[in-house]
Amino acid sequence: MEENRNTTAGLPIKCKAAVCRVAGEPLVIEEVEVAPPKAWEVRIKIICTSLCHSDVTFWQMKEFPGVFPRVFGHEAVGTVESVGENVETVKEGDLVVPTFMPECGDCPDCNSSKSNVCSGFPFKVFPGMLRDETSRMKDSKGEVIHNFLNVSSFIEYTVVDVASIVKVDPAIAPEKACLLSCGASTGVGAAWKVAGVELGSTVAIFGLGAVGLAVAEGARLQGASKIIGVDLNPNKFEMGKVFGLTDFVNPKECGDKRVSEGWGKTIILGVEMHGAPISISTLEILKGRSIVGSLFGGIKTKSDIPILVKRYLDKELHLDPFITHEISFTDINKAFDLLLQGKSLRCIIWMEK
Amino acid sequence: MEENRNTTAGLPIKCKAAVCRVAGEPLVIEEVEVAPPKAWEVRIKIICTSLCHSDVTFWQMKEFPGVFPRVFGHEAVGTVESVGENVETVKEGDLVVPTFMPECGDCPDCNSSKSNVCSGFPFKVFPGMLRDETSRMKDSKGEVIHNFLNVSSFIEYTVVDVASIVKVDPAIAPEKACLLSCGASTGVGAAWKVAGVELGSTVAIFGLGAVGLAVAEGARLQGASKIIGVDLNPNKFEMGKVFGLTDFVNPKECGDKRVSEGWGKTIILGVEMHGAPISISTLEILKGRSIVGSLFGGIKTKSDIPILVKRYLDKELHLDPFITHEISFTDINKAFDLLLQGKSLRCIIWMEK
Repeated sequence: MEENRNTTAGLPIKCKAAVCRVAGEPLVIEEVEVAPPKAWEVRIKIICTSLCHSDVTFWQMKEFPGVFPRVFGHEAVGTVESVGENVETVKEGDLVVPTFMPECGDCPDCNSSKSNVCSGFPFKVFPGMLRDETSRMKDSKGEVIHNFLNVSSFIEYTVVDVASIVKVDPAIAPEKACLLSCGASTGVGAAWKVAGVELGSTVAIFGLGAVGLAVAEGARLQGASKIIGVDLNPNKFEMGKVFGLTDFVNPKECGDKRVSEGWGKTIILGVEMHGAPISISTLEILKGRSIVGSLFGGIKTKSDIPILVKRYLDKELHLDPFITHEISFTDINKAFDLLLQGKSLRCIIWMEK
Repeated sequence: MEENRNTTAGLPIKCKAAVCRVAGEPLVIEEVEVAPPKAWEVRIKIICTSLCHSDVTFWQMKEFPGVFPRVFGHEAVGTVESVGENVETVKEGDLVVPTFMPECGDCPDCNSSKSNVCSGFPFKVFPGMLRDETSRMKDSKGEVIHNFLNVSSFIEYTVVDVASIVKVDPAIAPEKACLLSCGASTGVGAAWKVAGVELGSTVAIFGLGAVGLAVAEGARLQGASKIIGVDLNPNKFEMGKVFGLTDFVNPKECGDKRVSEGWGKTIILGVEMHGAPISISTLEILKGRSIVGSLFGGIKTKSDIPILVKRYLDKELHLDPFITHEISFTDINKAFDLLLQGKSLRCIIWMEK
């Protein structure tokens, strides 16, 4: 006999979602139907979610892989409402962080310390679930609403593949766990996992959004003695001091900044919006510099996010100052305005507040 | 009382040199005068030298840093004829390999395991000695003959800064030691020091000249299980099998070759001739690939070349097959023809044969 089994397991759930019907237009709060999880899937009741710049990028994208209607959102935290067949690592009621990065645990990449990019589920920006590429959401007319980045968190309940689910210590406040779902982990991971910042070293960070400031925080934790922020907005320096920024450079007022010739590492954390290539002179790198690409800051979600949770609970990792705004779900379009105006680092969107 | 002191120490030496008077024209064997070594300098009696592609690049260079008259050559071996003040690490009669890479031993780079590019003597292609940027060579009319890459080995006696001198075990045949002065060390080092090729891994090498084949040899020594050579010349595959090449790809007959997405490393060993930049899409590297530049294959000359000498003497490292031709000094222009025609890997130029 199963005790306390919830009444919704196995059934579709009707709930509120913020649906994007047309690229670049405000999201519309609608009632949608969320199917129960299939095998290897988990249905999550979202507690809170936040807006990341990748949501905005795809929200503005008029052509494929921009598809509509769609539920955006990929930085979130929630509790497990129910699980599909074969799901053994999480159960109803667990606090979980969904992520856009799957970790199958079986492929050569998941089994290597050198990679965090699962080859069992190759990373694609397709608009469906990981295994069958279909969606679990439909609108009141029965029309499919597309998934986003394996998560779709701008909704009260969402279905996520278990490969993309990280169980976290429920001692952490949900809005702090939410930050670790993407941006904060990416930045901290870049300093920790990819750069391997060493005690006493110097780090320069180009772009002081939430991810850039999380790089500063990661560099601070690794013991860097000089952490230089480079941004066109001088207000970012004040915001960044708590994360360890020691110096600020406005590229408008200063010449070049270069990494050490013999071993300087340049780490690329994102995709240039229009796909323009980076151009590197062989002479510039010949003396030992390197350029390293990184998705999710080299973080292996299932093993590393729980470590970041612990470091937060141990008061080592600063997360609180990333939260500059908090709003209720029905005001979700304000989060877009704040991010586009450069006013917010992270705006927490509460589902029930 | 100093015993066995040679009769030339402290005096200029008149000897034969292969002088390049005009860019791209055959070298001319002339009598030149080589000044005695100044402080921190060593005068070497060259035993043999070989032609590397960088000699050809600068030989063809009509404008600065192409300067004339000049004595080319930077891959060589010889014995110490005499030393200047403050030179304590080598003495008359020692077998030494001059290199274009200084290692001062005191700077942050020399003291770091992460760099092999001495910042005490920043790498430049200036036409003089390391410390005072003048030359020790003049012609019969008293005109200065310019130095090349800290070595100038197409001459019977040359003066080299002690920071660029590596003492080697005299058990090694000089023509084998000569190969370690530049090309073979660069290639082997790229696999050993920069790529850190692991047991069972796959390596692809683009361009199968002497350096590319030395990369194969380095990958073989590191235990790579698949070593793919990529070259327009299919004859290179036969030449490369002894160095461990297991597969051959002619880019004319095949599509793209790509490194592993999660952790593939691309190592750049040389400078694109016309300074054209490498163009990299951020999407291509975002999943964890890296691009690393390397000068001299990450080899720290004074510590690593003696290790390569030992590995050769222990019959682990193959060097003999790099020597495809041997000629006497007076025939030096033949070495240029062979290299330009793609017929030679290394042509040993003997000073006294």
